[in-house]
Amino acid sequence: MWQITEDDLVPTAIGAGILGTGGGGNPYLGRLRAREQLRAGRQIRVIDPTEIADDDLLVVAGGMGSPVVAYEKIPGGGEETDAVRALERHLGRKFTAIAPFEMGGGNSMVPLVIGAILDIPIVDGDGMGRAFPELQMITYLIYGGNPSPAALADERGNRIVVDQIVDSKWLERLLRSTTIDMGGHAGLATAVMDGAFCRTTIIPNTLTLAKDIGDAVLAARQHHGDPSEAVLGVAGGRRYLRGKVTDVERRTARGFARGRLVLEGTGEDAGRRIEIDFQNENLLIREDGEPTVTVPDLITLVTTDEGEPITTELVRYGLRADVLVIPCPDLLKTSRALEVVGPAAFGYEVDYRPLAV
Amino acid sequence: MWQITEDDLVPTAIGAGILGTGGGGNPYLGRLRAREQLRAGRQIRVIDPTEIADDDLLVVAGGMGSPVVAYEKIPGGGEETDAVRALERHLGRKFTAIAPFEMGGGNSMVPLVIGAILDIPIVDGDGMGRAFPELQMITYLIYGGNPSPAALADERGNRIVVDQIVDSKWLERLLRSTTIDMGGHAGLATAVMDGAFCRTTIIPNTLTLAKDIGDAVLAARQHHGDPSEAVLGVAGGRRYLRGKVTDVERRTARGFARGRLVLEGTGEDAGRRIEIDFQNENLLIREDGEPTVTVPDLITLVTTDEGEPITTELVRYGLRADVLVIPCPDLLKTSRALEVVGPAAFGYEVDYRPLAV
Repeated sequence: MWQITEDDLVPTAIGAGILGTGGGGNPYLGRLRAREQLRAGRQIRVIDPTEIADDDLLVVAGGMGSPVVAYEKIPGGGEETDAVRALERHLGRKFTAIAPFEMGGGNSMVPLVIGAILDIPIVDGDGMGRAFPELQMITYLIYGGNPSPAALADERGNRIVVDQIVDSKWLERLLRSTTIDMGGHAGLATAVMDGAFCRTTIIPNTLTLAKDIGDAVLAARQHHGDPSEAVLGVAGGRRYLRGKVTDVERRTARGFARGRLVLEGTGEDAGRRIEIDFQNENLLIREDGEPTVTVPDLITLVTTDEGEPITTELVRYGLRADVLVIPCPDLLKTSRALEVVGPAAFGYEVDYRPLAV
Repeated sequence: MWQITEDDLVPTAIGAGILGTGGGGNPYLGRLRAREQLRAGRQIRVIDPTEIADDDLLVVAGGMGSPVVAYEKIPGGGEETDAVRALERHLGRKFTAIAPFEMGGGNSMVPLVIGAILDIPIVDGDGMGRAFPELQMITYLIYGGNPSPAALADERGNRIVVDQIVDSKWLERLLRSTTIDMGGHAGLATAVMDGAFCRTTIIPNTLTLAKDIGDAVLAARQHHGDPSEAVLGVAGGRRYLRGKVTDVERRTARGFARGRLVLEGTGEDAGRRIEIDFQNENLLIREDGEPTVTVPDLITLVTTDEGEPITTELVRYGLRADVLVIPCPDLLKTSRALEVVGPAAFGYEVDYRPLAV
């Protein structure tokens, strides 16, 4: 068990943004919310997955909704803890730790806030090893965890508990609509599990990975190094393209930011042109009309000069960006996982081929 | 306390259809479901509101969703009882009786089915004295009942409990979306209350009224009387127009059947032309461009020859119909009620003027 300090927050947010593959919400806001907790004298305690006891009771908690909305409507912080507390009341038991949802943008920071407020530790790990757009795409649920009970809460005091659900896709479907009705953002708690189950289904140590990536980026900035190289040195993977964003199509539909980017190579990549499809997160790279990298492998954009992660809702024409591709964790590569997070799950008739690095 | 027999069902369904003012779902299906319960040997017990004890625990239960959908998707019967049971589990208490939602079409029969399955009585009365399209429009909630906890269940086994809600309009909003996601129909339980509260907020004896109306219609048919006159003899009110449907505009939006009818008078009403706006239920009559009868007073269409209620989803060009207008119960005429069920609540800039009979 260790504690997150204020100094950890900036690098962790940078690393989480990079692992977030363009989605997962705004890391800046999440970071401010976590900082606020520390400055209020609360503690953010983290445990390694190996420290989870078999009979611990864990819950997956975070924010649900479109990151585009979250910019305009800064989450108050109450809704995620309200969701957790609603589940505790429903179960008549207290949770002993929070298992993070995803390692992307805002939602990588939100569990820190929840843990601080509820005074319980969060686990160093998450259910995606990156960000994904839908609820059923967390390893805890992919590998047989219970989607119900689940709870959703908004900042007005509306709270619903999903008492029973057919499957995790139904949970996504029902809660997505409710989130939209709640104004586009809500606090979510789901996938209640014991410690033994969490230890085998969590993608471990991604909070540490995020911080290490962020530290490397900050060091590169300070020492005039190449931030992208610094990221890849920690996370693995390779730079797919260095270039410039030359086109962005984006629309918000059913709470998702969907669209397509075009980048054209510069320098040694001059003459190359790639397209990237996204649904909150970057999903697929096409080059010369052929898909070359797909989910669940990570496709992430960072600014060339600073290594700052670029989210799909803020990417704009003219940005100079490096496209980094990073192999996804092994837990996302099984046939069971690929049914839920592979290219076909996003409507692409493409077989997943693990990224060659 | 008395029991509903199979012979009661046909007249009650006819009367409920007439009080349903064009909405409330399909009385035929509800009747078949109630009959099925009786034939399975279960009992449908009814208590008068005066028989409710102060410390009885009541719940309002029925179906939520568009009647248009309910034609295609016959409710299985499990979802409404599932919703009630989910609330019982949530509260850790058993309900002693069911308070009906509305006296309209299918939803007037559904409480009989729930009572039979759960083996508890239903109260002779309801929360609308007619049908209305939205959840907050029940007297129990208008007069200060609790919209939460509430439960919604579908026939697949999805079940949600609304643990806390800002107000009854929020309950309508969140549950309406969820109902649509669930396929357009769901079982609902809400407005948990004690007996003392129920006795003062229920519109009493509308189940008996529905049966009496239906009996009068059946007697008129048998003795070649005028079915409309028979209805009015029991329910009060007057025949506004006898005529023919000459135009129907209808669309289904957000689970509601919305639209407008035109009727032209025949016989002594020849030369008159009226328009009726509906949102599931008939809301407003216009004649010569002026609103003449509005919600919450009852505007109901019956076939001229048989006195058979005509629902807004089945009304069609060429039907010969009597337009009956019936004063609404006093509990809907207070300023508190008119805020929720008066013309303004449906977007009309018209003051409610009680129907002159």
